[in-house]
Amino acid sequence: MTASHPFDQATQLHAETPGQYQGHTHPGYWNMVGPFGGITAATLLQAILQHPDLLGDPLSLTVNYAGALVAGPFTVQATLVRTNRSTQHWTLSILQADAEGAQVVTTTATAVTAVRRETWSAGDVPMPGVPQPEDLPAIPPSFGSEWLSRYEMRPVTGTLPRAWDGSGDHSLTQLWMRDAPPRPLDFCALAALADVFFPRVWLRRAHRVPAGTVSITVYFHASAAQLQETGMGYLLGQARGQEFRNGFFDQAVQLWNEAGTMLATSHQIVYYKE
Amino acid sequence: MTASHPFDQATQLHAETPGQYQGHTHPGYWNMVGPFGGITAATLLQAILQHPDLLGDPLSLTVNYAGALVAGPFTVQATLVRTNRSTQHWTLSILQADAEGAQVVTTTATAVTAVRRETWSAGDVPMPGVPQPEDLPAIPPSFGSEWLSRYEMRPVTGTLPRAWDGSGDHSLTQLWMRDAPPRPLDFCALAALADVFFPRVWLRRAHRVPAGTVSITVYFHASAAQLQETGMGYLLGQARGQEFRNGFFDQAVQLWNEAGTMLATSHQIVYYKE
Repeated sequence: MTASHPFDQATQLHAETPGQYQGHTHPGYWNMVGPFGGITAATLLQAILQHPDLLGDPLSLTVNYAGALVAGPFTVQATLVRTNRSTQHWTLSILQADAEGAQVVTTTATAVTAVRRETWSAGDVPMPGVPQPEDLPAIPPSFGSEWLSRYEMRPVTGTLPRAWDGSGDHSLTQLWMRDAPPRPLDFCALAALADVFFPRVWLRRAHRVPAGTVSITVYFHASAAQLQETGMGYLLGQARGQEFRNGFFDQAVQLWNEAGTMLATSHQIVYYKE
Repeated sequence: MTASHPFDQATQLHAETPGQYQGHTHPGYWNMVGPFGGITAATLLQAILQHPDLLGDPLSLTVNYAGALVAGPFTVQATLVRTNRSTQHWTLSILQADAEGAQVVTTTATAVTAVRRETWSAGDVPMPGVPQPEDLPAIPPSFGSEWLSRYEMRPVTGTLPRAWDGSGDHSLTQLWMRDAPPRPLDFCALAALADVFFPRVWLRRAHRVPAGTVSITVYFHASAAQLQETGMGYLLGQARGQEFRNGFFDQAVQLWNEAGTMLATSHQIVYYKE
């Protein structure tokens, strides 16, 4: 094996100076009018993880999609704002040259990293009882975006409506998923997996309208050791809309591994056009 | 009435130049080692709302508490990063002089504002059936922080444990709440109300440990008109922890008005010491 995984290619960054990186969009993670939002989130996290002054592991990440990236090179800036005893606060941005060659911000982000130690722990949202991934068929990409082929998806419930007839009555999706081809789980891949769900409004309305994430937040509960234990296993992802109002809806997400450990929770606010 | 509401005093900002403001901490919203996080979030939002280039209303706000503010003056910087056709992306920070007089970042934030128009809308998390606020007693401040006296709270369920005996088995709180004294609801007050819940770990463990918000995100679903209709009425707030793990837990929040309209959803990740 000489070729690296497409995920690693897509999130590859070359440091120019500490905190300033060059990256390049990857056709394998292309969405409709720009890269899959999850790969952008993963790339921002990657910039932090490569930073020489990094303390700890990812705790939270918020990414704001200000404008679509075009295919080509981009710059990631990661600024370490403050280091506390066990946490670090970061601000990030992605810049890309516009048609006139001026650098324009396409994406802003903030993140917190933390050194964690084992303490009393408990979960209040147990993994729902669902069939095992091996007992559910993997589905082909459900709409025509290239990035969908980078994920293996085995839905439990809440697939795309069979007919766009306005008959939707809920927004809950549960599915087993992992990178395709399988790749050992890490924090960057986990961030991307938090964003794989198709727009909740398509399910809730059974009506396909233009939609795009405006802002996503991921909270990381897993340790690096737990991600390593998860390996190339499946994650159960659950997504549900809470409120659809006047052009924007929010989505709440939980991600467990096959052992039932909550690895991450995530939320996003999404534009939809009616 | 010549005296303004304490909330307006606490969130008052004086613009020096567009995007740069001077504020001052308010003793009425003091928490244990700094201001109530909700008032800090409200103050950041206030900086955007006062900005001469503002487009639209708040859609999302993420605030990262990098370090505690000390009592005294502070600077808010609000930078308009990008204006799209109907959305704006903002980055913000709060700075305060440290013991040596150097300006230090205490807080970072990002926000999106949006011009919204009426579209198909639907809620997927209806307001739970609970007694009316008038039928529930207002409780005195449940622990010794001054800011608690700035809110009227009428709990439905999930009050502070009566005994810190480790007997907790859930993390759900529901309560009716509003500013005290009552004040017409606006976006800044709504942002603050998203943060009034005591740390979920206290309820889940029935064990009182040091805890503090690291990062909060608020998604605004309400229009200015809906906030105006809500007026000085109560909000039903619901908060629940999802995962408590190795020093940090996350909390999911929903806020409805008495008419059952979802005004905002919110999430935060919180440090706890064990």
